[in-house]
Amino acid sequence: MDILITAGGTSEKIDNVRSITNHSTGRLGKIIGEAFLAQGHHVTYVTTAQAVRPNEQQALTLLEIETTKDLESTLIRLFEEKNYDAIIHSMAVSDFTTETAFSEEQFIQQLAEKLMIDSSTSMSDLEQTLKTVMNEVGQTSQNQKKIPSNTDRLLLFLKKNPKIIAMLREKQPQAIIVGFKLLVAVSEEELITVGQGILEKNHCDFVLANDLTKITQDQHDGLLIAADGNLQKAHTKAEIAQLIRKNIEEKWRNNR
Amino acid sequence: MDILITAGGTSEKIDNVRSITNHSTGRLGKIIGEAFLAQGHHVTYVTTAQAVRPNEQQALTLLEIETTKDLESTLIRLFEEKNYDAIIHSMAVSDFTTETAFSEEQFIQQLAEKLMIDSSTSMSDLEQTLKTVMNEVGQTSQNQKKIPSNTDRLLLFLKKNPKIIAMLREKQPQAIIVGFKLLVAVSEEELITVGQGILEKNHCDFVLANDLTKITQDQHDGLLIAADGNLQKAHTKAEIAQLIRKNIEEKWRNNR
Repeated sequence: MDILITAGGTSEKIDNVRSITNHSTGRLGKIIGEAFLAQGHHVTYVTTAQAVRPNEQQALTLLEIETTKDLESTLIRLFEEKNYDAIIHSMAVSDFTTETAFSEEQFIQQLAEKLMIDSSTSMSDLEQTLKTVMNEVGQTSQNQKKIPSNTDRLLLFLKKNPKIIAMLREKQPQAIIVGFKLLVAVSEEELITVGQGILEKNHCDFVLANDLTKITQDQHDGLLIAADGNLQKAHTKAEIAQLIRKNIEEKWRNNR
Repeated sequence: MDILITAGGTSEKIDNVRSITNHSTGRLGKIIGEAFLAQGHHVTYVTTAQAVRPNEQQALTLLEIETTKDLESTLIRLFEEKNYDAIIHSMAVSDFTTETAFSEEQFIQQLAEKLMIDSSTSMSDLEQTLKTVMNEVGQTSQNQKKIPSNTDRLLLFLKKNPKIIAMLREKQPQAIIVGFKLLVAVSEEELITVGQGILEKNHCDFVLANDLTKITQDQHDGLLIAADGNLQKAHTKAEIAQLIRKNIEEKWRNNR
């Protein structure tokens, strides 16, 4: 089989020396990749600089990206070249990228200036006015090489990144798609509900739902939710990797 | 000699899965550490998880920190235990830490509500009002485990961290102190002016000023500015390390 795995965590630059980083050691992705490689599958592995990854070998194609935008363009190029049998999208992707940065003083000045122009606005329209003003302020290019440090408070405007998981089904209708959802300190019930929501919305075949508070050095609780509603549990990264591999192999055989 | 080196780059949590990170490979710090270790000095080396560091050896004490606050408390503890002969503060320290995060909708609602209360304010007082309101909004605890992702625009409020370099002289009056300043795409003149400003303000003995655009895999231009106005240039990390070591050893001998 031709398997595509995304793993690691993306970073979005704030300026030349700072980034917002999504944490991911890449350890789970590495083990999933190794599980498929051990069965003789070909793995295209898209990851980030800081993450661990499977050792180089012939059946492995390694690609490194930094930002969500990089990931998007890399995947689009890969999808034009090949139809994958399965896509395992485990990368921790930044939901937001930096739009602009202001010192509090700059922001207040901008906001006041723009509110001045609309000084005829009644207070009841204030929320709508603020919405318009914030949009104008957010789109003001600061064009800064390094964000200002001579202020007591800094405001970062972040704008939404493209949703990578949302484009997988459209670009690769034939693939068995596994999405990932990481939540923090939720009940198993909520984990299932949110995971099923992600699965349906993005037309995945499986979603691996997990909770940060259930991940330690030795333990990694994971819940593999299938499109038919079937639930399977794993308690270590190795178990999660085998669960995903077996379910993909089985579905692939049944699909043929 | 007893040498204290800080190296690497600090990170400040945004939520449980995201951080703002100051980039630093730690490569320069590692080489500086090795230059002192090779001369038989004892090195206390404070660094961050992602950064490279000198190999473990008897004359090396390694400490790992994450945030600027961690760095501050670690240094204060070290300074209570020992008087260092020299302090080389090369760590890329986050100027700001996360105060709160809002979706644009939450922010506008907060701002509008608080502006309402002050609806009697004349437009000429707007900037002052906004200052007060921003302060109130910034101090509103969001208490979020994971920042909202269901919004097109996110606002991060960042507040100033303690200035680590500013406390070194007060806590360790006997030490030879080397500060670092990284700028981006400036003239040599500006590099010198800014570097001298940092040196004077923080009562350093030396400041190593460098420019991100003059740092590549093989090259690292550095300008060592001494308190007496003397300027020395280096063009690689190894040259910078030797320049710092020689100047500290010489100053230490002269001080005795």
